[in-house]
Amino acid sequence: MNGAHALLGTLCANGVSVCFANPGTSEMHFVASLDDAPEMRAILCLFEGVATGAADGYARVTGKPAATLLHLGPGLANGWANLHNARRARVPLVNIVGDHATYHAQYDAPLQSDMDSLARALNGWQKRTMSPDDVARDAAEAISAAYGPPGQIATLILPADSSWGALSEDPAAWPVAVRRPESLPDDHMLERALELLRTKKAAIFVGGTATSKEHLGLTKRIASACSARFMIETFPAIIERGAGIASPERLIYLSEFASAQLAELEALILIGTNEPVGFFAYPDIPSTVVARSCEVVALAPPGTDTLFTLRELAEGLDAPAVPPESGEVPRAPSGALNRQSFAAAVAATLPEGVIVADESNTTGTDLFNATRFAPPHRWMTLTGGSIGFGLPVAVGSAVASAGRVLALQSDGSMMYTPQALWTMAREGLDVTVVGLSNRSYAILNYELQRVGATMEGATSQRMLEIDDPELDLAAIASAQGVPSLRVTTSEELTSALERSYATPGPMFIEAMFSKGLGA
Amino acid sequence: MNGAHALLGTLCANGVSVCFANPGTSEMHFVASLDDAPEMRAILCLFEGVATGAADGYARVTGKPAATLLHLGPGLANGWANLHNARRARVPLVNIVGDHATYHAQYDAPLQSDMDSLARALNGWQKRTMSPDDVARDAAEAISAAYGPPGQIATLILPADSSWGALSEDPAAWPVAVRRPESLPDDHMLERALELLRTKKAAIFVGGTATSKEHLGLTKRIASACSARFMIETFPAIIERGAGIASPERLIYLSEFASAQLAELEALILIGTNEPVGFFAYPDIPSTVVARSCEVVALAPPGTDTLFTLRELAEGLDAPAVPPESGEVPRAPSGALNRQSFAAAVAATLPEGVIVADESNTTGTDLFNATRFAPPHRWMTLTGGSIGFGLPVAVGSAVASAGRVLALQSDGSMMYTPQALWTMAREGLDVTVVGLSNRSYAILNYELQRVGATMEGATSQRMLEIDDPELDLAAIASAQGVPSLRVTTSEELTSALERSYATPGPMFIEAMFSKGLGA
Repeated sequence: MNGAHALLGTLCANGVSVCFANPGTSEMHFVASLDDAPEMRAILCLFEGVATGAADGYARVTGKPAATLLHLGPGLANGWANLHNARRARVPLVNIVGDHATYHAQYDAPLQSDMDSLARALNGWQKRTMSPDDVARDAAEAISAAYGPPGQIATLILPADSSWGALSEDPAAWPVAVRRPESLPDDHMLERALELLRTKKAAIFVGGTATSKEHLGLTKRIASACSARFMIETFPAIIERGAGIASPERLIYLSEFASAQLAELEALILIGTNEPVGFFAYPDIPSTVVARSCEVVALAPPGTDTLFTLRELAEGLDAPAVPPESGEVPRAPSGALNRQSFAAAVAATLPEGVIVADESNTTGTDLFNATRFAPPHRWMTLTGGSIGFGLPVAVGSAVASAGRVLALQSDGSMMYTPQALWTMAREGLDVTVVGLSNRSYAILNYELQRVGATMEGATSQRMLEIDDPELDLAAIASAQGVPSLRVTTSEELTSALERSYATPGPMFIEAMFSKGLGA
Repeated sequence: MNGAHALLGTLCANGVSVCFANPGTSEMHFVASLDDAPEMRAILCLFEGVATGAADGYARVTGKPAATLLHLGPGLANGWANLHNARRARVPLVNIVGDHATYHAQYDAPLQSDMDSLARALNGWQKRTMSPDDVARDAAEAISAAYGPPGQIATLILPADSSWGALSEDPAAWPVAVRRPESLPDDHMLERALELLRTKKAAIFVGGTATSKEHLGLTKRIASACSARFMIETFPAIIERGAGIASPERLIYLSEFASAQLAELEALILIGTNEPVGFFAYPDIPSTVVARSCEVVALAPPGTDTLFTLRELAEGLDAPAVPPESGEVPRAPSGALNRQSFAAAVAATLPEGVIVADESNTTGTDLFNATRFAPPHRWMTLTGGSIGFGLPVAVGSAVASAGRVLALQSDGSMMYTPQALWTMAREGLDVTVVGLSNRSYAILNYELQRVGATMEGATSQRMLEIDDPELDLAAIASAQGVPSLRVTTSEELTSALERSYATPGPMFIEAMFSKGLGA
């Protein structure tokens, strides 16, 4: 038995049964060992950012880590941006990064690099396994670390000789990864939160893992019982939504609007997430969005038992049940494609149980409201702000789920990781992608006014436009094996969505908006 | 005047007049300032790996740094893999990475990350500029550091408030970047090298910047005068080649063949590069390729005056002039496409002055010999082993050169940075791309036998094949505005190459090889 076998054995024994892979020479023994590990589903990705984003999506849906398989420092670097998003989503994720053989590192061969610093920049767990005999133990430790809670990125650096070398003896059993128990809220803090909820203008602010139907229902009960507001972070990793599911007020993205939204609050009770802050800094706008006079209680930080805490709050307030919310779903729209009709078309056709990967950015501002009372579904957002997450996360969530995934994907962002489409085709994943074509970095046109930059010239303006030449998104999809079509009206979009939901496998719908829409 | 103006002023005043950019919110003031800096050519890239690879190509051709413009940690990470190749090419390169405003960092906003560790992993120069008044000085320092010699990656991290903030007073003049003088060889080492060349079975081994026509001619003279071998590193950054240019023997890629190639040597004199080592480690194959009994003299390490050193050697040996080498160029081939006919078609049509970006990998093994006596041209190779370098480097070298660039691009590798094609179309760059379709990670099929991994099952084999679905490379190019066509015979390839050389702007030629060719 070699180290690669020990690695696969440990992963599978601990329920890590999917690996999103972009292997190279140093990972060949891992690849060869796949034939002896039929429980492991290995999924090839053409670019590492697809593999890491897919592992993020898989974890958001299942709560379990997937493995990635990456090739040395450049492989880890190519996967880093979507690992950043996964880190911000606080999902468990196990990176397996092949490295030169231990004795080869000293020679500074061309692919040698400071991989430890790259891994360190992920602020998670990392270890280099120096012997085949240590592989199983270190892999179990990586899985344990990934689980947390809260979830984090665990990076296991595996020198080639630790992978190909024989174990001195076969292990009697695979080591077991241990998930640390979630911690409980401090009693004093719980009392303080209850007091604030009873007596002050308060909001309960949820995020992280406190976004399931059960969490949201409980929070709604608590908020109703004490007339508190019920809010959610701007970019949740995944949230259950739709008819019959309690729906929180979403914190606005832009700092000054978020500040206004929170201005009247005297107390903010945090459940599953941290205090919200401005996404970017802007001249003369504060970085913080919570008023200085507002008391913030970090009652259930990430990694704690949020459900227990919510139950304690509900009990403390003797909070009665609340009737399920209901409301109208927009009707299928007609006419030109714009933000409103796009949102209505998505909402009117949304199938029950769908998982939405939302990287619609400026085109998608109306989506969240429009879909509020659609059939129950889950929604994933860009937690870390690193664009190019939508298609890879859709790959991973489709692997994790038996149902349909809907990826709403802006054109500029799509071009960071277009290779994800190929994996959708290869694996026959039930993903509907709507490629939103506005031929512009519309958000930058918007942001540049906000940072006080004035662009008067053609040179600067041209840096925000991507219409010369125009990208043919549908062709980029079909070139990678995903059936595609282009729509220019609301009716065409509605009809294409319906058709794709009824058709197994991936489909790409390029929706043509007016240029710069969203700016 | 704000920090962004000071940055652009300093860059332009010091000859850094091209910026490959993928900006975000934190870089908006830089973008806005472009309108006041007409000397700066800003080139938009859809992915950061394109921007960094382009800056690498630009520097290989001109010897001068270009700037990149990247967005926070994820932007630097996405550009990292091609920065790794640039580091191994020892080119000067100035990264400008926008960051959150200095006072915003403490809030751990979603895009906050450990950018310092990412930059540190590039083993170059790095600095964070904390005030608008320091921008000009730090930018000049970055350019100085980038030049070295040897060239290196200089990363200037620019918090948004250093960019948008006003300078307390306008500078009287822009600070001047200083290039350190190259050092000269040690006299004793020079004497030792001369003695070894006179008395031992020796080779002069060149690389780095010692690959110009003048360097190669001098080295050939020296080698001829003392019956030494004249060799070059396996993956030079850029080398002048073709009719009338002295042609060295290239070190073989595979360790055991390289060891055999060097086995008889008693002395190895290094000029412009370091001692060669095995690219990867393999079980039971040594990491080193130079025999233990061979005396290695690091006579002119990277960053030293290699031309001076070669002149000293030539003088010390009283080396006479040698006649220019000549030989036959293959004739235009006919029939099926294979490695031989592909190489012949390239060689038979190669225009004088072309710059070749070679990421042909396993399909291109016959190219170097076939083109030896083609009209004078330059050849660039994958210095750092991080695939996805070919198209981006072609972008940068086309920006740097008035002539034609020929990118020879394997399919698997192309899919790491296909977005480079869009920038070729947008800028109307004279790049001919040959996309080499063998629908396989052929090199991995080859390497896996060498690492001793045996793959008997369909699962593992499927991880090395990219033919399900097949990629339509030509469609990926035309979807991004690059005219494309597909060829299946030698005659079609020859004809397409000739047509592209006669047509301004980019053209993409997809060459269909048999599946797995090269494995």
